[in-house]
Amino acid sequence: MRHRHLLTRRGLLFALTAVGLLGWLGIAKADDDPLPSWNNGSHKQAIIDFVKRVTFEGGPDYVAPPARIATFDNDGTLWVEQPAYTQLVFALDRVKALAPQHPEWKTTQPFQAVLEGDAKALEAAGEKGLVEIVETTHAGMTTDQFDKIVADWLTTAQHPRFKRIYTDLVYQPMLELLAYLRANDFKTFIVSGGGQEFMRVFADKTYGVPPEQVIGSSGATKYQMVDENPVLMKLPKVEFIDDGPGKPVGIQKFIGRRPILAFGNSDGDQQMLQWTAAGEGARFMGLVHHTDAEREYAYDRDSEVGRLDKALDEAVAKGWIVVDMKNDWKTIFPAEKTTP
Amino acid sequence: MRHRHLLTRRGLLFALTAVGLLGWLGIAKADDDPLPSWNNGSHKQAIIDFVKRVTFEGGPDYVAPPARIATFDNDGTLWVEQPAYTQLVFALDRVKALAPQHPEWKTTQPFQAVLEGDAKALEAAGEKGLVEIVETTHAGMTTDQFDKIVADWLTTAQHPRFKRIYTDLVYQPMLELLAYLRANDFKTFIVSGGGQEFMRVFADKTYGVPPEQVIGSSGATKYQMVDENPVLMKLPKVEFIDDGPGKPVGIQKFIGRRPILAFGNSDGDQQMLQWTAAGEGARFMGLVHHTDAEREYAYDRDSEVGRLDKALDEAVAKGWIVVDMKNDWKTIFPAEKTTP
Repeated sequence: MRHRHLLTRRGLLFALTAVGLLGWLGIAKADDDPLPSWNNGSHKQAIIDFVKRVTFEGGPDYVAPPARIATFDNDGTLWVEQPAYTQLVFALDRVKALAPQHPEWKTTQPFQAVLEGDAKALEAAGEKGLVEIVETTHAGMTTDQFDKIVADWLTTAQHPRFKRIYTDLVYQPMLELLAYLRANDFKTFIVSGGGQEFMRVFADKTYGVPPEQVIGSSGATKYQMVDENPVLMKLPKVEFIDDGPGKPVGIQKFIGRRPILAFGNSDGDQQMLQWTAAGEGARFMGLVHHTDAEREYAYDRDSEVGRLDKALDEAVAKGWIVVDMKNDWKTIFPAEKTTP
Repeated sequence: MRHRHLLTRRGLLFALTAVGLLGWLGIAKADDDPLPSWNNGSHKQAIIDFVKRVTFEGGPDYVAPPARIATFDNDGTLWVEQPAYTQLVFALDRVKALAPQHPEWKTTQPFQAVLEGDAKALEAAGEKGLVEIVETTHAGMTTDQFDKIVADWLTTAQHPRFKRIYTDLVYQPMLELLAYLRANDFKTFIVSGGGQEFMRVFADKTYGVPPEQVIGSSGATKYQMVDENPVLMKLPKVEFIDDGPGKPVGIQKFIGRRPILAFGNSDGDQQMLQWTAAGEGARFMGLVHHTDAEREYAYDRDSEVGRLDKALDEAVAKGWIVVDMKNDWKTIFPAEKTTP
């Protein structure tokens, strides 16, 4: 009995100490570095200072949790967009996969160009051609069927340079930022020119952003009964372009309130950042500047994909934070590979 | 010292007992009746049983919290829609308020009909006329300006029969249901034919549903710079009708996953309930049947406003819950008046 008593007392003391120590370490660690993949410097500090200011109850910049809305662009802000937008790669792969059912594509542009790998003819088809490819490959099936097609593609398609699946090519520092904001009661949204339905397939698992917080470009759908079972058929019609001035429109439509923090990387994000900046109270506007040709890519004013020109000028003029990928980020991609 | 010791021990014991007792009472009370304004009976029991089934971890019907999506119609489901939709009353009031700036309305239909109170001419203008009234009164200002106009109107406009402001004429039993679901980690959405921007003005305060969880019909907006300040201008163009087959479309667009519980009251909710029912796992489909002419209104198959005909047949055939307002609800409206 005495032995057991001692064990209990000592066991209890030990347990309490361990719990206390772990708790203390946990808190201390979180306090020390909520963004371990960011190099120390003014940009990292600006993020942390902003979060501390808006979460400090009683402070002049305090924002109540429900109003802590944060919006993030996806392509080039959360994952790689070079040498081509991932969703475009998907669409081109779909043309190839569907070609056997469409013999007429062998002699019809822009499909012929895709099948023959004729970059010049594809370029000649222009934006109209691309829209046709996207509309054709993203329609004619139910929303559930589309989800499955995207999910299957994402498990196998590999990036040509990094030889990893696309959901591995997300930016580790941004994953940490998303998690840090949520730990501080922010609601994190994706507001992207990319397809809403496309992103929703992986956003929850990859970014921790649930479908109802993913806003993107979208096509029309139609409610139909198929064998007494209701489905939503995807129609070959782009309905909303969530890019440039469409981003504040999308934010108002889907969220109904203004973000207090917004992050982008291109001119397509300029209006989202303007809209965020124009609100009252503390604000954070950030751009990811791709400056790291070695570990990722270096591009801005002259790039066809993710051009950063006017937004860069405005950011510099207005003191928005321009993250320098090469200098600000300790690592680019998550170390762990999902691929075999 | 001995005294103090006793006090401490006894105090501690008392405190623990009190806390335990309060906790036990609290739990017991919540268990006893999470829906105090609902009369006991099979409908109330069906709601409670459903919530218990989907929240019982390890049970066959368990649903993880993020997938606990619940969607509610607004007009006639959460607040009064008779004798006319509140937003229509608002639009007609706006025509009167704006008339001095539009002398041409004195001789232009459908505005002339509104100004002269000519119900026959207004009816003759039909749906086209109503759309014109809504588009005219809901556009030509920024989203912020519109919010303020609606907010001001809601504090003064009174229901013709009940002589209370409209946000007082919400259904107390449904407020309890919303709160009960949220207490069980459901995410509650409004999915209504009513205007999204209109409802968002009061939905958070009145229903506890934040703007980003309010889905409704909406008009186009345009991002513009006014004196170097970005605004979203409301355009006179209806863009999305969130009614009938538009409800599943809106649910997919805004939420991106299927509800496991949906509540409506009219044929405009039929497709939302079908869409909800067609998902896998435990489901709850509910209709509010207005059967109480004395305390509220009694209407269904023959009503122009909130007609309940086909959806009622389907509900009966498929065993969806049809709430009988007269018999199921102990009280209709919250007791406390917001009005002076």
